[in-house]
Amino acid sequence: MITNLDVTLRDGGYRNNFDFPLEYVLHHARESVAAGVEWVEIAYRNGSFKPQPGVGPTGTGTDDYIRALAGVVPPERICMILHPKNITTEDLPRMYEAGARLVRFCLAAGAPEPGLEMLREAARIGFTTTVNITRVSQLDRRVLVELSALSADAGSDVIYLADSNGSLLPDEVFRLVTLVRSVSDCAIGLHAHNNLGLALANAIAAVEAGATWIDSSILGMGKGPGNLITEQWLAYLGRGGQAGYDLGRILSLAHHMETEIAEAKPSLPLPDLVLGHFDLSVEDRGKLPADHIGNTFSAARELTAVTAA
Amino acid sequence: MITNLDVTLRDGGYRNNFDFPLEYVLHHARESVAAGVEWVEIAYRNGSFKPQPGVGPTGTGTDDYIRALAGVVPPERICMILHPKNITTEDLPRMYEAGARLVRFCLAAGAPEPGLEMLREAARIGFTTTVNITRVSQLDRRVLVELSALSADAGSDVIYLADSNGSLLPDEVFRLVTLVRSVSDCAIGLHAHNNLGLALANAIAAVEAGATWIDSSILGMGKGPGNLITEQWLAYLGRGGQAGYDLGRILSLAHHMETEIAEAKPSLPLPDLVLGHFDLSVEDRGKLPADHIGNTFSAARELTAVTAA
Repeated sequence: MITNLDVTLRDGGYRNNFDFPLEYVLHHARESVAAGVEWVEIAYRNGSFKPQPGVGPTGTGTDDYIRALAGVVPPERICMILHPKNITTEDLPRMYEAGARLVRFCLAAGAPEPGLEMLREAARIGFTTTVNITRVSQLDRRVLVELSALSADAGSDVIYLADSNGSLLPDEVFRLVTLVRSVSDCAIGLHAHNNLGLALANAIAAVEAGATWIDSSILGMGKGPGNLITEQWLAYLGRGGQAGYDLGRILSLAHHMETEIAEAKPSLPLPDLVLGHFDLSVEDRGKLPADHIGNTFSAARELTAVTAA
Repeated sequence: MITNLDVTLRDGGYRNNFDFPLEYVLHHARESVAAGVEWVEIAYRNGSFKPQPGVGPTGTGTDDYIRALAGVVPPERICMILHPKNITTEDLPRMYEAGARLVRFCLAAGAPEPGLEMLREAARIGFTTTVNITRVSQLDRRVLVELSALSADAGSDVIYLADSNGSLLPDEVFRLVTLVRSVSDCAIGLHAHNNLGLALANAIAAVEAGATWIDSSILGMGKGPGNLITEQWLAYLGRGGQAGYDLGRILSLAHHMETEIAEAKPSLPLPDLVLGHFDLSVEDRGKLPADHIGNTFSAARELTAVTAA
């Protein structure tokens, strides 16, 4: 059985400055949970990797915000994500107190220990915990093994592989999940991006390799071309025999979101496909010419050659 | 190695009454071929399954139209598709004379013989031939086996499985390709629709099962939510090691198409996902309420229950 995590409010926040109206957020969380989604990720705590001033509520994740969510869905459905460098140990008991029960740690590959120490503390408090390993497409495999083993030792319930650049192929996802499983006994999760249109194929490959936690977002709303699309994923699980999700309700939520949130419109921009093809980050998009897609492609190829050299 | 077939001008025609400007068509064919795509399907001969009056050039495929195309790309890249009931044997030599070299026969499952006789004639003339078996998701497996064996006996070079409703899962595609391979020695092709977002995953599964011909269209432009997206597919093949395609050129063509053809805008409409989920045809969309997606979903579920009863 798959544990599904709805990342719309957090990853979708990259498209609207994390500024979802509170009324929308409450409706979204309620409907997602009512449709059977196991966890709703409601916010970053104290900012994303590079905290920005002036972001909306899903970019800061204050205690009051968590409490508002805990008023409409059970704490056992409320997930927060954070970069360890952005918090102090005081944040953990406060988030728990406010009503969150799952906390995800974006681990810094170069210096994981401070984050892992916080994870141990979160587990002591009673949180379910995950380690999120970002940009796995570019991570040295020995570093991935080391991080996975350390995460398992620290007691993380789940190790998430994040294909931040949306550049992995299903075969590669299968091998990465297999690798991490072989050096830890944690549950494995996948956070997919859709640059190459492969988010769904990659989620299927991850599950075939034994992953059991899958991130997705309604209408795919997320950074760049977005994430695995929740409605497609639940439709797949439903036809594949995993019952228990209310697809009609998720589609209604998707329709409501199309109406309410201008930035949620799904699309597959050609420049994001180029980024995925060359395994470049969304931050590299600014380095590429935007006048013509042919020029974007050529410049990305050159940038990759330079990076690889 | 995969043989790629660009169906944009034909299947995309369902969105714009088959009315592409000739100047656009010539540009499209030239660029698709220049990017390395093996075949460009330029039109239906004498109409689609239900011929409509007043359709544009890619819905009729006249001799003059074929000749115009043969003026810009080699005949060995020009494909026509037809429903046998729409043509006489005179059409075949005329299409060959005008410059087409691949002809695809949409076989009627109930009465395949007239079509197969035409296919034998096409092969005698010198055409490469394919049989296209439509709505395979709803076809009795014994009928599929029978049609496949008859197609092989008739000398078809390729047997295409068309997931017309866009409802197949990758596992099902794998099994269907395996089944057809086991009763014929024809090459196997897949024509995917993207209702469930699975076109790309299904193409990958088809190839894993031994299929070697894959249909796709630029920006996915095709009936309903469209087909496998050419630029995603060639990006996948490129990263997977099948070189020889000019992805930058295909992306430029996609960009040009976005600019020139209003109906080409890619999207994944929620009602089409509902159709795919319940294995309903695009013709069933008119039977479903359009006021709210939740109602569309409920009505589709009821319609399916009625159909299955």
